[in-house]
Amino acid sequence: MNGLSATERTRHRRLRENGRTDRAALYEVLRAGFVCHLGVVSGGVPMVVPTVYGFDADHLYVHGSVASRSLTTEEPAGSPSAPAGGSAGTVCVTVTHVDGLVLARSVFEHGVNYRSAMVYGVPRRLEGEEKTAALRILTEHAAPGQWDYARPPSRKELAATTVLAISLAEASVKVSSGPPGDGDGPDAELGLWAGVLPLATTWLPPVADPLLPEGVTVPDHIGGRAGTRLS
Amino acid sequence: MNGLSATERTRHRRLRENGRTDRAALYEVLRAGFVCHLGVVSGGVPMVVPTVYGFDADHLYVHGSVASRSLTTEEPAGSPSAPAGGSAGTVCVTVTHVDGLVLARSVFEHGVNYRSAMVYGVPRRLEGEEKTAALRILTEHAAPGQWDYARPPSRKELAATTVLAISLAEASVKVSSGPPGDGDGPDAELGLWAGVLPLATTWLPPVADPLLPEGVTVPDHIGGRAGTRLS
Repeated sequence: MNGLSATERTRHRRLRENGRTDRAALYEVLRAGFVCHLGVVSGGVPMVVPTVYGFDADHLYVHGSVASRSLTTEEPAGSPSAPAGGSAGTVCVTVTHVDGLVLARSVFEHGVNYRSAMVYGVPRRLEGEEKTAALRILTEHAAPGQWDYARPPSRKELAATTVLAISLAEASVKVSSGPPGDGDGPDAELGLWAGVLPLATTWLPPVADPLLPEGVTVPDHIGGRAGTRLS
Repeated sequence: MNGLSATERTRHRRLRENGRTDRAALYEVLRAGFVCHLGVVSGGVPMVVPTVYGFDADHLYVHGSVASRSLTTEEPAGSPSAPAGGSAGTVCVTVTHVDGLVLARSVFEHGVNYRSAMVYGVPRRLEGEEKTAALRILTEHAAPGQWDYARPPSRKELAATTVLAISLAEASVKVSSGPPGDGDGPDAELGLWAGVLPLATTWLPPVADPLLPEGVTVPDHIGGRAGTRLS
């Protein structure tokens, strides 16, 4: 399973040179963030909601009732045979990191440096041990160390949580990086500055809950992230 | 036009307390970023693509052929009467800023602080002066000062660019901020640290194109952004 399948949906018609089809590149993009944009179709209309995700070798996991509401609006409630995603059922999950602005000599050549992953799949609702395992992956991806540090979910809390698994089998990655492309064209004669204005997303020092009693110290797994780059 | 219309799609069924329906809040979220996630339906399947945007009082503008391809796949090419978005035509544009991780005493209460805007509309393809004006808005939103500094688009370049306008009439904003909510509940007795780990997205110093001749200085409208926060 080294290559990602290039289906009609994920084969890049434009910017083909930017398409990366190896699995390592996919994991790299997924590792560098924890909020995705989940696209679903509800009543024929697309709906794009930001939501937390986690992943393992073969699946992406999302949770929360926003997603579950979106994924069930097309089927009557309580219909036991209804697939999670309604009639079609396929969702699109996109994870994007914006790395900088590409400032060219011409307006037309301006662009964005970014890394982006798109995953298409029919989500499967997890239950039991699978659900708990996925919740742990999701929590540890966003907040490493918190699954063991914080109080684990109770049975009631687990029941109130929806966790969906989406296969990583149909995925694609696009990466755009480097300077603008007009440095050796006629516009280079204009004598204008050109280059990249990079962006960095960084963790700031933790801010304690005002209700926290004095003397409770920040654990290393939280405090140690301050100053590090997210993406 | 102070209030945003609360349609069935944008009325929040969950997290109602987080919903903000005033236009100023919408502009604030749109101002704080320049990449949105555009959701379209193509062959019944959702497709979520990151793309640059700009906006004015009444419209959001997106451009690029990714969007235009997505928006035209459901109609035969060259069909003059085909609406931009195929049969349904409505798209969803979501702009999200992730402000931090909310680290609670229990795994269940963990969350994300964020600001997010969702806009639903049927895009209209712009031409002529409208198109140029929208491209200027879009460019100046992402890279203020570049429209006048860089070479403006030629007729040929303009013809090769698609710009779509989406009305801001049907939009909603959700903001989640502040500490975790379990500081006055039974879990407060656990003696665990709780609070927020904030995230900041910052512009780094500009990186010159390696092909740039020596002696071309970085203009202030670019260099002055280094060290400032994007969102």
